Amino acid sequence: MEQEKQKPTKTKGLVAVFTGNGKGKTTAALGLAFRALGHGHRVCIIQFLKGSWKYGELETAKKFSPLLDFHVMGRGFTWKSDDLEKDKQVAREAWEFAKEVILSDKYSMVILDELTYLPHYKILEEQEILSILDRKPPKQHVVITGRYATKKLIELADLVTEMKEIKHPFQAGIKAQKGFEF
Amino acid sequence: MEQEKQKPTKTKGLVAVFTGNGKGKTTAALGLAFRALGHGHRVCIIQFLKGSWKYGELETAKKFSPLLDFHVMGRGFTWKSDDLEKDKQVAREAWEFAKEVILSDKYSMVILDELTYLPHYKILEEQEILSILDRKPPKQHVVITGRYATKKLIELADLVTEMKEIKHPFQAGIKAQKGFEF
Repeated sequence: MEQEKQKPTKTKGLVAVFTGNGKGKTTAALGLAFRALGHGHRVCIIQFLKGSWKYGELETAKKFSPLLDFHVMGRGFTWKSDDLEKDKQVAREAWEFAKEVILSDKYSMVILDELTYLPHYKILEEQEILSILDRKPPKQHVVITGRYATKKLIELADLVTEMKEIKHPFQAGIKAQKGFEF
Repeated sequence: MEQEKQKPTKTKGLVAVFTGNGKGKTTAALGLAFRALGHGHRVCIIQFLKGSWKYGELETAKKFSPLLDFHVMGRGFTWKSDDLEKDKQVAREAWEFAKEVILSDKYSMVILDELTYLPHYKILEEQEILSILDRKPPKQHVVITGRYATKKLIELADLVTEMKEIKHPFQAGIKAQKGFEF
C-alpha cells in the first residue's frame, strides 16, 4: 500500500537494520536471505554471536550451497565468560573478516547478524562500522541485526525496523522449542 | 539471554503474532518456516493477501517440497477493487480452508500470512479466528502476520512482536528491489 502513496525512482543496495528487544530480528534477516537466494543471488551471513543461528537454519542453509556462505564467528561474549579478552579478540577478527566480505563485492547481500553488540559492549568503535557501510559496493544490500542500534546507525540506514516485544512465551513459563525457537 | 532470567518448564505449540507497521512481519514468519523445515517439520503457509509473497520465496519454497505446502488464497482486497463482494467471498473461502488445515493436525507449523486484515476489514468476525486458535492441535505452532492485531488476539497469543517502522527506503525515494523487497 505504501507503494501507491509515493513514486520512488532510485535503486540502490540498502542498509537494513532490525533492532529492538522483540523476537524476529534474526528471523527476518534469514527470511531476506532466502528471498534473495530464491532469485539466485549470492548471500553471505556472518554470525557475531555464536549460537544465535541454530540447527534448523543450518540445515536449510545447506540446501543453498554454493550460493549461500555462512560463517559462525563469535564466541558469545555477552554471556559469562572465562576469558573476556579472548572473546573480544574473536569478535574483532570476525569484524575484520566481515569488512573483507563486504568490500570484496562478491555478494548481493551480506547479513551481519548481532553486529550491534560489538559497539554496545565496546569491542569495536561504531565509527569503524559506519565508515565501512559508507564504502560498501553500491548495489550490495547489508543487513544488520541486534539490539541497541544507535542513532548514528539508524541515520545511515535506509530501512530500520524496531522489533518490539509485546509478549514472550517465557513470561508464561513456556520453554524454547525445537523447530520454533531454534 | 532471556533464557537465563527464567526457568520455563512447559512446552506447547505457540500462537505467534507479528504485527505493526514496519517491515519484517512476513519475512520473520518465512524465517520461522525455514527453521522448522530445517528440522524436517511439516509447514503450511496460507497467504491471505495475494502478492505478499513473491518470486524469491516461491522459488525457495520449491526446494522444500513435499515438507512445505504453500497456498496463495487471497485476491488483495485492500486495493481498489472492481468487485468487493467477490474479494470478500474469496477471503472467506481462504479462511474456511485455513480452518481445515489447522484442525487436520498434519502440520507442525501453520502460517496465516496477513490474516489480521480479514477482521480489520470486517470480512471475518474476529471471534471465529479466536475460537479456532483455542481448538488448535496442542503441539502445532500457528503464526499470524499483519497490521492491526487486536487486543484480544494479543491476549490469546503466546508470542507477540510489534514491527515498528523507524525508517523506510520509500521515504528516501528508493524503489522496491528484486532480491530484497520481493
